[in-house]
Amino acid sequence: MTTPALACPLPIPADQLIVLGHGSGGRLSARLTEQVFLPAFRNAALEQLDDQAIVPVPGGRIALSTDSYVVKPLFFPGGDIGELAVYGTVNDLAVGGAIPKYLTVGFILEEGLPIATLQRIVESMAQAAQRAGVLIVTGDTKVVEKGCGDQVFINSAGVGFVPNGLTLGARQVRPGDRILLNGSLGEHGITILSQREGLELAGDLRSDAAPLNELCAAIVAAAPGLHAMRDLTRGGLSSALNEIATSAQVGIEIDDRAIPVTDAVRGACEIFGLDPLYVANEGKMIAFVPEEQAAAALAAMRANPLGADARIIGTVTEKHPRMVTLRTRLGTERIVDMLAQDQLPRIC
Amino acid sequence: MTTPALACPLPIPADQLIVLGHGSGGRLSARLTEQVFLPAFRNAALEQLDDQAIVPVPGGRIALSTDSYVVKPLFFPGGDIGELAVYGTVNDLAVGGAIPKYLTVGFILEEGLPIATLQRIVESMAQAAQRAGVLIVTGDTKVVEKGCGDQVFINSAGVGFVPNGLTLGARQVRPGDRILLNGSLGEHGITILSQREGLELAGDLRSDAAPLNELCAAIVAAAPGLHAMRDLTRGGLSSALNEIATSAQVGIEIDDRAIPVTDAVRGACEIFGLDPLYVANEGKMIAFVPEEQAAAALAAMRANPLGADARIIGTVTEKHPRMVTLRTRLGTERIVDMLAQDQLPRIC
Repeated sequence: MTTPALACPLPIPADQLIVLGHGSGGRLSARLTEQVFLPAFRNAALEQLDDQAIVPVPGGRIALSTDSYVVKPLFFPGGDIGELAVYGTVNDLAVGGAIPKYLTVGFILEEGLPIATLQRIVESMAQAAQRAGVLIVTGDTKVVEKGCGDQVFINSAGVGFVPNGLTLGARQVRPGDRILLNGSLGEHGITILSQREGLELAGDLRSDAAPLNELCAAIVAAAPGLHAMRDLTRGGLSSALNEIATSAQVGIEIDDRAIPVTDAVRGACEIFGLDPLYVANEGKMIAFVPEEQAAAALAAMRANPLGADARIIGTVTEKHPRMVTLRTRLGTERIVDMLAQDQLPRIC
Repeated sequence: MTTPALACPLPIPADQLIVLGHGSGGRLSARLTEQVFLPAFRNAALEQLDDQAIVPVPGGRIALSTDSYVVKPLFFPGGDIGELAVYGTVNDLAVGGAIPKYLTVGFILEEGLPIATLQRIVESMAQAAQRAGVLIVTGDTKVVEKGCGDQVFINSAGVGFVPNGLTLGARQVRPGDRILLNGSLGEHGITILSQREGLELAGDLRSDAAPLNELCAAIVAAAPGLHAMRDLTRGGLSSALNEIATSAQVGIEIDDRAIPVTDAVRGACEIFGLDPLYVANEGKMIAFVPEEQAAAALAAMRANPLGADARIIGTVTEKHPRMVTLRTRLGTERIVDMLAQDQLPRIC
């Protein structure tokens, strides 16, 4: 006698399915990493959970990073998917203190994509690689049937050289560190959202996509006691600060009046009901610097065009570990939590 | 006065659209590389057009490789997309003579994927990484809306250490070289196709997915004059041989009677009307070895379980450069051309 087959399999509960938020860089992403990826792949480099892994090679150390890009639309004011694929991976290496050198690129194309579209993306990647001073040394192309992809997805993985003696990372952050930000928040995310929603804004809203490697190298040179840097992509400033507060077991206090946001972004955020602290950037970063080196780091940032508007936005504290608080423009304080999900899927 | 807008944009001619064949590893893939990627990204490492790029780091050289995996179905006899993502990139490094060390992985998930499916794939990747002796050191996850992807796409990029003094590559191949193959052809491609078509075959048809790094290292050790190795993935043996004949400007002669193909694969190939020379493998490779070291290389291959059935299948000649010919079982000769497109999309 055999067990009768179920006429219909039981449906899988909704909380056991992948949702867009699992790709958001927010709390759902973190949970997927903790529950699925870390237990399976566990090793010392991966467990740092920084944006890049630092690993030994025979003559020193290299940094490795990878990101896939699924941004929609492919082209937008200030950039395109190709630029993001270069700058995003360059920046993940650079904030680890590495000098980005080589990229690999993998394309997943949807059948029916105009070759001219691919060509435009590839030319943009070539220019971006030149600007960032990296070589695209190997690649791969796969094509999936129409309806099984969405025009173009790009993965880029990067290799950077890590200077001898340098050790940056979320876990190095210490109470007393000053938090420096290189410029205004939210431009990339709001540009993408405005394009999708067909919103015509008065200000010229453009993505801030840019390579941060020279800026990061300048900070490393100016502030040898530097503890950590992070770029502010998916999940924005709030995700980066919350991740670091958790990793380093510290509190973080930031001051809203010190955080630059353009009028155009502020206006669009009001229309969309978004908080610029949570919106993605593609050319913004924060640095954690001991108090006595903060002025030197700030001066070095301001000397670089991508840090012209740099500010000290906050301080690391021993109080309320693992918590990020904001002093508002009204002088009150509020907790800056990590979002469970992204506000905006497919932002990069 | 403004120019009137076209009521309807002109359709893009079909030959200017991406088709499945552009991802096949065949002639359309090669054309896309020549016409789109090479002109934009040109540099010495990329121009070698090997399966991996060899680049300098302080203290030595590393090999870099990347591949995206879009195989359908995700799970099949002998493997799954996770194993392919590990072994495929490991093998691309190993055939360059590198010792594979580190992998990065990027997931593009479709909304609605059961987390249990992801978990199963990730556990398989962890086992595969352990078997191949590599560490997965960093990763990324993106999620796209339902209908904009197809369950799971995986990119893996890899880093290997290149032993001092070793220079392998298609351009090193010389007339007189013997061509060695580590085992029977077509098992991966035919297994995938049989799964898709629901074909029940008598023989136990299984993918040959396996990590070739130890086998490759054994060949390097046994045959110091080794010129090149290639793994036989998309496009099968014929694509690999044609690429090398073109790169090295040599002729290649192979003998069908020397090429092992199991009865199960041969039978399925007859049903599907396929030639095993063109079918993808995931655990097969060829080596180009000077005549005087061929016996030593063959013995080293046979001493490894993944090369137990290794054979010398042909010779590199000065005759008919850029052409691959096959001596058939009937004693006649025919040209083994490169396919314009893949026989089987989404095979890896």
